[in-house]
Amino acid sequence: MSAVSAGLKAPGKLDMVLFELCEGASVAGVYTQNAFCAAPVVIAKKHNTLSSSCYFLINSGNANAGTGEPGMQAALQCCEALAKESKCDTEQVLPFSTGVIGEAFPVDKIISALPQALSQLESNSWSEAAQGIMTTDTVPKAYSETFELADKQVTITGIAKGAGMIKPNMATMLSYICTDAEISKESLQELCQDAANLSFNRITVDGDTSTNDSCMLVASGQGGLVYSEITKEQRLKFALVLNRVFVYLAQAIIKDAEGASKFVSISIEEGAESAECLQLAYAIAESPLVKTALFASDPNWGRILAVIGRAGLVDLEIGKVRIYLHDVCIVEDGGKSTAYTEAMGQAVMNQSEISITVKLSRGACSEQVWTCDLSYDYVKINAEYRT
Amino acid sequence: MSAVSAGLKAPGKLDMVLFELCEGASVAGVYTQNAFCAAPVVIAKKHNTLSSSCYFLINSGNANAGTGEPGMQAALQCCEALAKESKCDTEQVLPFSTGVIGEAFPVDKIISALPQALSQLESNSWSEAAQGIMTTDTVPKAYSETFELADKQVTITGIAKGAGMIKPNMATMLSYICTDAEISKESLQELCQDAANLSFNRITVDGDTSTNDSCMLVASGQGGLVYSEITKEQRLKFALVLNRVFVYLAQAIIKDAEGASKFVSISIEEGAESAECLQLAYAIAESPLVKTALFASDPNWGRILAVIGRAGLVDLEIGKVRIYLHDVCIVEDGGKSTAYTEAMGQAVMNQSEISITVKLSRGACSEQVWTCDLSYDYVKINAEYRT
Repeated sequence: MSAVSAGLKAPGKLDMVLFELCEGASVAGVYTQNAFCAAPVVIAKKHNTLSSSCYFLINSGNANAGTGEPGMQAALQCCEALAKESKCDTEQVLPFSTGVIGEAFPVDKIISALPQALSQLESNSWSEAAQGIMTTDTVPKAYSETFELADKQVTITGIAKGAGMIKPNMATMLSYICTDAEISKESLQELCQDAANLSFNRITVDGDTSTNDSCMLVASGQGGLVYSEITKEQRLKFALVLNRVFVYLAQAIIKDAEGASKFVSISIEEGAESAECLQLAYAIAESPLVKTALFASDPNWGRILAVIGRAGLVDLEIGKVRIYLHDVCIVEDGGKSTAYTEAMGQAVMNQSEISITVKLSRGACSEQVWTCDLSYDYVKINAEYRT
Repeated sequence: MSAVSAGLKAPGKLDMVLFELCEGASVAGVYTQNAFCAAPVVIAKKHNTLSSSCYFLINSGNANAGTGEPGMQAALQCCEALAKESKCDTEQVLPFSTGVIGEAFPVDKIISALPQALSQLESNSWSEAAQGIMTTDTVPKAYSETFELADKQVTITGIAKGAGMIKPNMATMLSYICTDAEISKESLQELCQDAANLSFNRITVDGDTSTNDSCMLVASGQGGLVYSEITKEQRLKFALVLNRVFVYLAQAIIKDAEGASKFVSISIEEGAESAECLQLAYAIAESPLVKTALFASDPNWGRILAVIGRAGLVDLEIGKVRIYLHDVCIVEDGGKSTAYTEAMGQAVMNQSEISITVKLSRGACSEQVWTCDLSYDYVKINAEYRT
């Protein structure tokens, strides 16, 4: 891979990343479900079904979203230019973009930077690639694990970007994760989907789902491990490490979320079904009143209670709901727990990592999502984004 | 009515309001649908079905919500004390509270202030009453219209409070509206419900529905107009003025919304059904990214487009969606309108009242909601609320 400056961001800033895939590599992906899905996402999805991919061509600084038919043409032109330059088919190039929505896509800048990107390809420039895909991110996000499986050494390495417009519903940022195991496209898609559901699809900053975001998982097959030949237990271990990589990157997005000063885990337990647990978890995670209380380190649990009441859970018996800050029970029997004191809540709220748990007493399902607080800086960053 | 200082807010601040209703007055109400509905709301709803009401006993400074069974007892004790003092039945008192959730209700302060409140009852202290129900409101909200109908003079006067935790779903604030017409309880309930649906149920500040909010409509029958005796056209005229009073008060809440610097109307037109229009309108109205762009006066229409795409409308054809700022078309054919320039968008965004219209080209339904921007001050007010 390589990362270069194509001039979409400030001069000298890395804003274009090229991944060259090994011959025979499998590629899986999950994509935004936003109906105003960006041109590159439409093309990447299509190209990945048509052919074995050779390149990911990624840029930050311009989303090529809300750009209509001219945007589609622009993305295709970039794929064609790279295909010509590198002697592959246009369908073997998957394009990805992130940045401001609705601005004309600077095809010429991308094409001009292709020779440099091709000439600088190296097998291990993850750090530069992580920088090249950043937008409002303040830190690059990368993670890697190497482990033994079936007497083979296996590596899974990934990068991600994202800090705002983050709301799960199929991959909600850009992330590229590679393993050197050999895995069929079908198995890889299943692994990618499952891991994304437990990671990128469990985070929210502001409830806004982007038009562009994509999570791509590549299996190069260069490392020796052949997924189809390992046991069920070994597959579970592989999935476990893969999920850990995904979760690390997803949580890194929340920890770097726009203006965030707190990392917040919201767990809903004892729900009747998964859907109602997620519905409630997101209602709490996206409540501006809960998020501003978290920013202020204010154990204003009445706001959590109010959200639970308005989250639309059918036949909720409020007397059975218990709310915890870490392991401190704050609400039970429809009101403040008798053992609770403000000092106990304050002690939790003063921490930088906070967990809120709601126990519904109506089933055995549980779900967890991760979010952050709502600060002055979130408003500042998003008010000044284009200036 | 009267407004006194019971000591729930800062010393000297009006925080308790008493409405005495004329004998024979009809009372209608719509109430929060929050499952963690506050104790006074539970009691007010019940009392209004049991008996003809004599008093509304309202306090600000403490919501008596999330207070469990002790909160129910506290609200009932206040009703009983007022009933004893004024020689009516406990069921003839409807209690209402607004303020911080989850704190023990100061029964003694309320009961101590009752004699003063009863002794100061006057027929026209709307202004003091509007002040007495305020919490984070910066201005009292009141409106009145007097008009001729069927040769009778009719007056409709109302007050409202609310600035945050505002999301429609049955009355989402406190509002008390009175008319001197004579109207049966059934007709009044219908009028109240219809007017609330087009006013208080069409506003949102932060998507958070309060535990306490109630909208009460009283018909005293003292003015001479008898609703059951007027024609259908005259009833329509009455409803028109009533709706205007409700809409004025609802919009006053948005104009005074926490930290708000813009009043924003969001209209969805050409939808297949009312529900999808409202779904989309609220998705836009509650998007932190749209709201921060509005705060910055930034015509960053890509964020509106991104919300439309993620709002969950089934089979949305993005090429048919048109987005307008006032009458400036910014998006058509899936991308930026060819005639649109940034200067045109900026000219709209610089104004303090902004309308966003989305035309879906898939039906004849339309809906409108009102909201505001998301500013530093919203975060500040809600971070510091309890300090």
